[in-house]
Amino acid sequence: MRCKINTYSLTFRLTKGGITILPFTFHNPTRIIFGEGKASETGSITATYSKNVLLVYGGNSIKRSGLYESVVNQLQQANIRYVELGGVEPNPRLTSVYEGIRLVREHKLDFILAVGGGSVIDAAKAIAAGVPYEGDVWDFFTNKAHIQAAVPLGAVLTLAATGTEMNGSMVISHWEQKLKRGSGSPLVYPRFSILDPTLTYTVPANQTVYGSVDIMSHVFEQYFSLTPDTPLQERFCESILQTVIENVELALDNPEHAAARANLMWCGTMALNGGQISLGMQNDWASHGIEHEISAIYDIPHGAGLSIVFPNWMKYVYKERPDRFAQYATRVWGISPEGKTTDELALAGIEATRQFFTRIGAEATLSEFNIDDSQLERMAEEAVRYGPIGSFKRLHKEDVLAILQMCL
Amino acid sequence: MRCKINTYSLTFRLTKGGITILPFTFHNPTRIIFGEGKASETGSITATYSKNVLLVYGGNSIKRSGLYESVVNQLQQANIRYVELGGVEPNPRLTSVYEGIRLVREHKLDFILAVGGGSVIDAAKAIAAGVPYEGDVWDFFTNKAHIQAAVPLGAVLTLAATGTEMNGSMVISHWEQKLKRGSGSPLVYPRFSILDPTLTYTVPANQTVYGSVDIMSHVFEQYFSLTPDTPLQERFCESILQTVIENVELALDNPEHAAARANLMWCGTMALNGGQISLGMQNDWASHGIEHEISAIYDIPHGAGLSIVFPNWMKYVYKERPDRFAQYATRVWGISPEGKTTDELALAGIEATRQFFTRIGAEATLSEFNIDDSQLERMAEEAVRYGPIGSFKRLHKEDVLAILQMCL
Repeated sequence: MRCKINTYSLTFRLTKGGITILPFTFHNPTRIIFGEGKASETGSITATYSKNVLLVYGGNSIKRSGLYESVVNQLQQANIRYVELGGVEPNPRLTSVYEGIRLVREHKLDFILAVGGGSVIDAAKAIAAGVPYEGDVWDFFTNKAHIQAAVPLGAVLTLAATGTEMNGSMVISHWEQKLKRGSGSPLVYPRFSILDPTLTYTVPANQTVYGSVDIMSHVFEQYFSLTPDTPLQERFCESILQTVIENVELALDNPEHAAARANLMWCGTMALNGGQISLGMQNDWASHGIEHEISAIYDIPHGAGLSIVFPNWMKYVYKERPDRFAQYATRVWGISPEGKTTDELALAGIEATRQFFTRIGAEATLSEFNIDDSQLERMAEEAVRYGPIGSFKRLHKEDVLAILQMCL
Repeated sequence: MRCKINTYSLTFRLTKGGITILPFTFHNPTRIIFGEGKASETGSITATYSKNVLLVYGGNSIKRSGLYESVVNQLQQANIRYVELGGVEPNPRLTSVYEGIRLVREHKLDFILAVGGGSVIDAAKAIAAGVPYEGDVWDFFTNKAHIQAAVPLGAVLTLAATGTEMNGSMVISHWEQKLKRGSGSPLVYPRFSILDPTLTYTVPANQTVYGSVDIMSHVFEQYFSLTPDTPLQERFCESILQTVIENVELALDNPEHAAARANLMWCGTMALNGGQISLGMQNDWASHGIEHEISAIYDIPHGAGLSIVFPNWMKYVYKERPDRFAQYATRVWGISPEGKTTDELALAGIEATRQFFTRIGAEATLSEFNIDDSQLERMAEEAVRYGPIGSFKRLHKEDVLAILQMCL
């Protein structure tokens, strides 16, 4: 997922009575249909939007689970003509997007239905933006063009993770060039997203873990901010973090734990639905930038990369605002401040994060994926291709390299 | 404000692994433009929607503050033709709504711009729904008809309180019949709402207090719920409550405290933007129902009525789920559970609520408004006119009467 959805001025404004929330505009048009069994309404809901649909999905998991069969039966019963694009990859590739664009044009389809996790929905968004565009859809990911129009899309979510089901962002990989790039537009918010927690009962343990790390990481990118005086936003962030922490292991222990699956799914959506939890706060997104460079080259799961990068990023930057990290330690992890300096408290919170990721089974080092230091230089260079990244601490190439070396 | 926006089945569903979030659909189309000075964009934003506008506002406060002059200048500069409906009352009256409908029809206007607090925006919503309706707009408030169409509207908010700037609800008073009734529709969500915290710098202390009580009360209606296993929603609710509590006195001590005013304004919107903080939870809304009966007859400020009613409602119902009240006491008020039973903790949280309301200057008894017991029977009868109210505890006429007597 590309997640840099809020870009605010770097300049804080001093006003009478203190510094305050930065100006923002917020508009989220996605309709959420949430509940156990709601996937059975996919056909009837889709029919209210279109009768000519590109059905996008990923690997075999939705065939094994029976969801694929259910969806195509529903589309048929709703008299919806559909063309299939299956096999969309985790870290979805540009080649799949090209194929989807071709199918929509050739079959004169006017709606895209994505059934899957973040990768499938992101691919569907890229297809949606690419269809009405005369040039190469990759232009949207290299800042050569901006999205001016898009085919409408809807989603049936099968994994609690990226938040793409309720935002206008997407990330696509150009596998041949080893590039992973984000883009976004208000035009690619899904018209609807069906959130049926029972669809996640069959998600394997490692995907449950990576999805949860992804959710927490989205919150970190927003929560560790220099913007002062944003108590509501900070608490919204802490609310999601605490709830994910409480529910991951429940879902791992019992994959059909209805409440845990529902809570994780709603956390995932709320963590990144157009930045709502952090409106008016400057966001960071450096760690996502760094992770994208890793998974662009090595195709490791995004959540695994984030698990490796984030605690190291935290250690590298916490001195910019140790009080925020101390708040994180006490409010999210319940670490007592007694007898600790602010720095010690901050570090204890970072250590708790690492320990939690390890306990649930997420990787801590690149070496666990047999990744050595041979490409670090290239990754660091690519990460800062448009200039320094991050806002909590501006990271130059040497900073990114230092963090990557901590990840080995 | 009428606030009963989420109506869920009373039946909890038992599923494998526990009980979970109730099914819900969520769609909030309002565009929020937030920030200091954003009111200066009213003309340009409105112009993107319409060139023929009904301008709705309340009393003299926007004339004193200079906002009125600024808005009409902006409308003129944007070449927007506007017709004025001023003088909309707190507890807005049906007569003002009738007048607005007449003006829109007579002058062939196609957009409504509300500049004011909750009352002004609610009146604008009722006008919006009434214009295309052939019958009496009051029908929407007596369940005789449902809203099928509405003129689009936008809002410039001048008071942090009701949340109407980002939801589809409204409350109108029929003064002659002493009735105060709510209605709502997805069709009356504002197309945009401009949230400029500097507009609230001139809000008098008592309105700041009543608005804050209103915000907290909206959260109470959602938070005190029998729905189990909704940790994220509960924390979102607690986040708003804590933030309001921290900021009210800052704003009272320094009315131009930028951060406090911004935080209160965003709390107000988030507390009731289509029920987003409590999606999947059964809401209560009995206290609002009871308060409406009081202010329908006595025209006291809604926030004052809520300050009187809510702690008494809490005392009357807490035994239905003392653990939720105990959680409220510890998490929101920081009351130590040590050495206390759950009931004692619950009661301590309720007492802290009353003490806070009193400390900031909100009334605790009806007698402070010289209201005696002569109309209690009638109020109780009216409150349950469609049957028992509330879901945390179903309240019959005798329950409502008992709570009202506690309010004397």
